[in-house]
Amino acid sequence: MARKEIGIGIAGIGTVGAAVARLLMSNRERLAESAGASLAVRAVSGRDQSLPRSFDTSLVRWFDDPVALANAPGVDMVVELIGGAEGVAHDTVRAALNAKKPVVTANKALIAAHGLELAALAEQSNVSLAFEAAVAGGVPIIKTLREGLVGNHPRRVVGILNGTCNYILTRMESDGLSFGECLAAAQALGYAEADPGFDIDGHDSAHKLAILASLAFGTRIAPEAVYVEGIRSITSADIKAAADLGYRIKLLGVARRTDSGIEQRVHPTMVPAKAAIAQVDGVLNAVSIDGDLVRTLLLVGPGAGGEATASAVLADIVDVARGIITPPFGRPAKLMRPYEQAEMRAHEGGYYVRLAVNDRPGAFAAIATRMAEARISLESIVQRGRAGREGAPIDEPQPVILITYETTEAAIRQALDAIERDGHIVGPPQMIRIEKL
Amino acid sequence: MARKEIGIGIAGIGTVGAAVARLLMSNRERLAESAGASLAVRAVSGRDQSLPRSFDTSLVRWFDDPVALANAPGVDMVVELIGGAEGVAHDTVRAALNAKKPVVTANKALIAAHGLELAALAEQSNVSLAFEAAVAGGVPIIKTLREGLVGNHPRRVVGILNGTCNYILTRMESDGLSFGECLAAAQALGYAEADPGFDIDGHDSAHKLAILASLAFGTRIAPEAVYVEGIRSITSADIKAAADLGYRIKLLGVARRTDSGIEQRVHPTMVPAKAAIAQVDGVLNAVSIDGDLVRTLLLVGPGAGGEATASAVLADIVDVARGIITPPFGRPAKLMRPYEQAEMRAHEGGYYVRLAVNDRPGAFAAIATRMAEARISLESIVQRGRAGREGAPIDEPQPVILITYETTEAAIRQALDAIERDGHIVGPPQMIRIEKL
Repeated sequence: MARKEIGIGIAGIGTVGAAVARLLMSNRERLAESAGASLAVRAVSGRDQSLPRSFDTSLVRWFDDPVALANAPGVDMVVELIGGAEGVAHDTVRAALNAKKPVVTANKALIAAHGLELAALAEQSNVSLAFEAAVAGGVPIIKTLREGLVGNHPRRVVGILNGTCNYILTRMESDGLSFGECLAAAQALGYAEADPGFDIDGHDSAHKLAILASLAFGTRIAPEAVYVEGIRSITSADIKAAADLGYRIKLLGVARRTDSGIEQRVHPTMVPAKAAIAQVDGVLNAVSIDGDLVRTLLLVGPGAGGEATASAVLADIVDVARGIITPPFGRPAKLMRPYEQAEMRAHEGGYYVRLAVNDRPGAFAAIATRMAEARISLESIVQRGRAGREGAPIDEPQPVILITYETTEAAIRQALDAIERDGHIVGPPQMIRIEKL
Repeated sequence: MARKEIGIGIAGIGTVGAAVARLLMSNRERLAESAGASLAVRAVSGRDQSLPRSFDTSLVRWFDDPVALANAPGVDMVVELIGGAEGVAHDTVRAALNAKKPVVTANKALIAAHGLELAALAEQSNVSLAFEAAVAGGVPIIKTLREGLVGNHPRRVVGILNGTCNYILTRMESDGLSFGECLAAAQALGYAEADPGFDIDGHDSAHKLAILASLAFGTRIAPEAVYVEGIRSITSADIKAAADLGYRIKLLGVARRTDSGIEQRVHPTMVPAKAAIAQVDGVLNAVSIDGDLVRTLLLVGPGAGGEATASAVLADIVDVARGIITPPFGRPAKLMRPYEQAEMRAHEGGYYVRLAVNDRPGAFAAIATRMAEARISLESIVQRGRAGREGAPIDEPQPVILITYETTEAAIRQALDAIERDGHIVGPPQMIRIEKL
């Protein structure tokens, strides 16, 4: 049977790009059965043509300039794997869409920053813009939100969206190591970049969360509205206290519809140890969606890695080749509602607080008074006397751990500011939000 | 903006059908944004027009005969929610596809029995046949296998596919109750039918597994080739022994590619307690897929219930309305490969064995000898003396629990047959397969 052939150009030929090229070539017949068209890699672009590749580069045309690749005749579909919100990646995707060529991208920064503009351009050109690989690697969460749950009104999306952070937190707990030791281990294993800030300070998760929130709630994408805290401040003492209290600490991205708008927040979170998402360890990613019809749906899988990401890119390529043109965010870009931001101060939830308290008469009473002034009720208080901390010097500050009942971010900040000013504690208070799951 | 309107006919208006009708009406504008077309419920059919419904039946045309509904002008898409592999459901779907109308169905029995024939008919008519709701209710596992993992060669699919069984096994463990007590509780809560055999004997899971296997491996659907054991034989002693040994017992459906063909089996299974799927409790469903690119992907969510099932039906309706026509099994029906069945005797794995052994000299030696004759190595042996079982009469048989290393089904059956013939045990041996996860 003679099949239509679709020419594919891959812009950016690093680990993922090379895996996509290799898999398109080695699985050509099987993918053609599914796509209803033969998928031919015709062009690639990269920084250095001389590097060795894991696929036969002699079969494809090389471009130094990805925009030229996007515009080249014979390239019917552009796969953008360059990365970065601005510059050449953005130029390449715009060029392809302007030329009425569908685009598949794994670029979370680009979609977070320009997703709506690009979606509108794709719709205007009546071609697809697909970005399954931009969030949670091999986990088909974009398709699930955009298509699988289309009948639902999601209330909340909760995700472990950064494998580097989850690996570090998992090792801190399993091996009793410090944050710094686990970061070094992650770097040695290639799970963390030499400059790890983008991951461990939560920005990578924030980009992904903004994309998921937009899909879940039908609102314009708003990465600048994500409240972000990373995991640098998490200590072994927090990990241990969490375990003692029946929690685990995860860097979660949480997007939630509330009466006062939409919350988007990325921060270390105390998760009940029995919750399914608490069991997600190492470099895995997970996303849990609370919908009105499905209650809770959980997806767990590999969030990164060349092959897992290539799996998502291939799924998008086949969808596009099948001729499926859906609005990139599930509904037309012009119908996406304005994003209404809930104030972080209005966030409601329980809090974990760890204080290093000077062992003076009245210190504890002062702390309790400040909590009461902010109308915060305490669910549990853990204070181990010196007897429980063998070898502790007599004048060392005592660790005190408080778990609050549900209160507001404004209230807890008021209480902690007052406690800090009172001078009974050493160092800043540690505060970690608790998420009900 | 004037939108195309698509007329929908719903054949079978029970819990799910009524939920679908109500949701299509109440979410009309939102669904139209996603579908790019207005979705109008124009006709329904059911057994008794006089029953009260949760949606306004005056807005739609009533049919006593669903085949007439399928053929009615104005009905552009047929949603089949009648159930059953043969008879009127089959007739209705065939009538719709013959009339070149797309079909959405939740009917696992129909798809398991006639899926390939109906897929071929849909392809011939160039319309869709969608059945997301047929497996695992609100969990979008069909879409995930057919589209999200299209670049993968799955090696294994493992599922908790029947909420009734999972509820019973969960309650047996959590509350220490017998199988019969938990079945009665499930029936009282509406989780189990008055005639529960289809669920608890594993046939429901087998239908679903056959559908998943076909999608995962691209092979013709073969429900008759599923090895099936239900959960009636599971006792509190097994549940407790499993917990002591670090396992939990789940009714799993497992489809696996092996060198000698494809295994499809549904049986009570010892699952490592730390495996993610072991944490899936109550009426939830879960499916785990091992792919070559994604390694392991896990989906967990509601397997049944009117709204969860309606969620899957609505997703299919919107996909179909978008004009998406994919082959129902992800590749053309005529390209599905023949199913090559692996012999159950060749199954390889570890086994849990529980025996009630007469307390005679030589009994245990005879058992060990029979295992050795079958070349089975034992990983652990748990035999509690009378001291460990207070109040046990002196001549009561002793429970002995064995965990084998990996062996074959043929070997364990040979050994257990010989042990039974030797006459040292009371009652038949209990044998539960262990799955590595």
